[in-house]
Amino acid sequence: MSDKPLKIVTLLGSLRKGSYNGIVANALPGLAPEGVTIEALPSIRDIPLYDADRQQDEGFPAQIEAIAEQIRQADGVIIVTPEYNYSVPGGLKNAIDWISRLPNQPLAGKPVAIQTSSMGPVGGARCQYHLRQILVFLDCQVMNKPEFMGGVIQSKVDEQKGTLTDTSTIEFLGKQLSAFADYVRRVG
Amino acid sequence: MSDKPLKIVTLLGSLRKGSYNGIVANALPGLAPEGVTIEALPSIRDIPLYDADRQQDEGFPAQIEAIAEQIRQADGVIIVTPEYNYSVPGGLKNAIDWISRLPNQPLAGKPVAIQTSSMGPVGGARCQYHLRQILVFLDCQVMNKPEFMGGVIQSKVDEQKGTLTDTSTIEFLGKQLSAFADYVRRVG
Amino acid sequence: MSDKPLKIVTLLGSLRKGSYNGIVANALPGLAPEGVTIEALPSIRDIPLYDADRQQDEGFPAQIEAIAEQIRQADGVIIVTPEYNYSVPGGLKNAIDWISRLPNQPLAGKPVAIQTSSMGPVGGARCQYHLRQILVFLDCQVMNKPEFMGGVIQSKVDEQKGTLTDTSTIEFLGKQLSAFADYVRRVG
Amino acid sequence: MSDKPLKIVTLLGSLRKGSYNGIVANALPGLAPEGVTIEALPSIRDIPLYDADRQQDEGFPAQIEAIAEQIRQADGVIIVTPEYNYSVPGGLKNAIDWISRLPNQPLAGKPVAIQTSSMGPVGGARCQYHLRQILVFLDCQVMNKPEFMGGVIQSKVDEQKGTLTDTSTIEFLGKQLSAFADYVRRVG
Repeated sequence: MSDKPLKIVTLLGSLRKGSYNGIVANALPGLAPEGVTIEALPSIRDIPLYDADRQQDEGFPAQIEAIAEQIRQADGVIIVTPEYNYSVPGGLKNAIDWISRLPNQPLAGKPVAIQTSSMGPVGGARCQYHLRQILVFLDCQVMNKPEFMGGVIQSKVDEQKGTLTDTSTIEFLGKQLSAFADYVRRVG
Repeated sequence: MSDKPLKIVTLLGSLRKGSYNGIVANALPGLAPEGVTIEALPSIRDIPLYDADRQQDEGFPAQIEAIAEQIRQADGVIIVTPEYNYSVPGGLKNAIDWISRLPNQPLAGKPVAIQTSSMGPVGGARCQYHLRQILVFLDCQVMNKPEFMGGVIQSKVDEQKGTLTDTSTIEFLGKQLSAFADYVRRVG
Repeated sequence: MSDKPLKIVTLLGSLRKGSYNGIVANALPGLAPEGVTIEALPSIRDIPLYDADRQQDEGFPAQIEAIAEQIRQADGVIIVTPEYNYSVPGGLKNAIDWISRLPNQPLAGKPVAIQTSSMGPVGGARCQYHLRQILVFLDCQVMNKPEFMGGVIQSKVDEQKGTLTDTSTIEFLGKQLSAFADYVRRVG
Repeated sequence: MSDKPLKIVTLLGSLRKGSYNGIVANALPGLAPEGVTIEALPSIRDIPLYDADRQQDEGFPAQIEAIAEQIRQADGVIIVTPEYNYSVPGGLKNAIDWISRLPNQPLAGKPVAIQTSSMGPVGGARCQYHLRQILVFLDCQVMNKPEFMGGVIQSKVDEQKGTLTDTSTIEFLGKQLSAFADYVRRVG
């Protein structure tokens, strides 16, 4: 397994400014193993709802083109997202719906890791398996383990500072990032 | 089982004008059993992405309020939707995400039927079970059977006229509507 | 809603003697609301693997016939089960596979509640939604809420005595049983 | 991508002698690309239900040990199975439950392909995604595409001769096997 430098990008499924999942995503660059850089993809906030008529009339939204370009240049993608109503947030699914229609679909074959956090004890597990089913169609290489499900996440962050504070969560995320770097080098 | 008149509303998961699922939804009022009226809910097209900050700053979108009000006055809801990427379309999930946050959540306890159509042979089955998991959280009473999965739907419609033409599909939908009317009268 | 006496039966998905889910199931009769009796169905332990040839040659196993008869006489069923490998235990699924082939299938239309417990924090959530999908085909009326997922269950029982000890779990189960009694009286 | 010879094994989820999925599995060796041998794993028929007490008292069933040994010596595994009640057959899940408890768990990291066939048009799709969720826990590398879902399978075989007759199904399976050989050589 080589030690070539890796570029990983994060796709955030939450839109609100102080989101717990945003805090998790922001912590990742500081937890990356040596030789791995982690950067946030553009926000999915202002992407219109997917509509085949809109695609035909106006083409792809600029944000989707920008996200796609950065995914193409990346070695792997981490999807960091809350669970809404036992599934993937509509906004995140909408971004994926757009991406899936792109020529030279950028997620095809790409290594992917998933991180979900929620206020309840289940930590977004229900969302993860829906997302995995979706990513079969997108033809992603989704890492199996370790899975990160941040339960009771409000107790693990400093909301004022926007930082992750729970040491075992920080440690676990560091391990997941190392495992993902190995995975990317192996299957990417 | 009484014969009281029922009002059923349809929620369409597709946005494009000529959508196959729109053709199916449009056929339903003409297939309703006696005493049952079926009306389309307002389009989900222009609903912004759910965002807790937006909800706090601007409240709920007018379309969500209108959809919610019509659901409250209805005896049951039929969700008619394509499958995107092995799951629920982002736009439909986004509408559900907004609805789930409403005080006096209008789908709670509501009888629901699901209809999916797609161009492949599977007919949207993957979408149906994701939707069912979502509707557990919304506390809907989702009818089990008969399930409508309209496979190879392009061969069952007249796209020019926007009409459903396949007689066995028409017959099946009529039976599902009758079963749903019975179900609504029983559990609603 | 009437107060007619209800008979509820429990189907246990675990086979080992000291199973955590068995401890939960054993606690239920003592937590039942007034007018509700809860009894264990026969064990699924010695049921052979479903095989259409075996069904044709030997008919249904005696245990399946006994379970089916008691389900038919019951007003509702509670499935109490561990999660194995992110899904329903093979033994429980095998029992359901046999039941599904019975003439006058006994679970059809039957009100069902689900309880899963596991040693991890997720509490068997992944199993619950697989089970719900299976029970769509069986045509059960599965209660939506409250859902019982007993996470970290080893900390909530006295394994020596085989009793449930965690007071908030006991209280929650009592509430779920009351909700299920109401549900059975409404949809059963 | 090297051309090293590959050994692939098939795990059959059906027990009845004339099973459609058995016919599909039997066709695979003749459709294998050059350099690839495909062999059937021992039957899961007589494996007792998983039970931790039994494991402790009697150890693992001999069939499970035999299956595990052959999986360890194989480069990849194809699971060929019917769908029972919208999910994985209990017998197949039971075999997986046993395998998951083995020290040096043999499916960990193993490349896997899935083939489901059924009499309805959906072709076992519901089973495939349950199986994929299970195989996340087993840490398998499950190929995304092409997916084989043999709908209306009774029209595609000669039941008397036990052979696959539908030319487009035969062709599709050949392509899937080629894709799987490539996949195994890449990620295995």
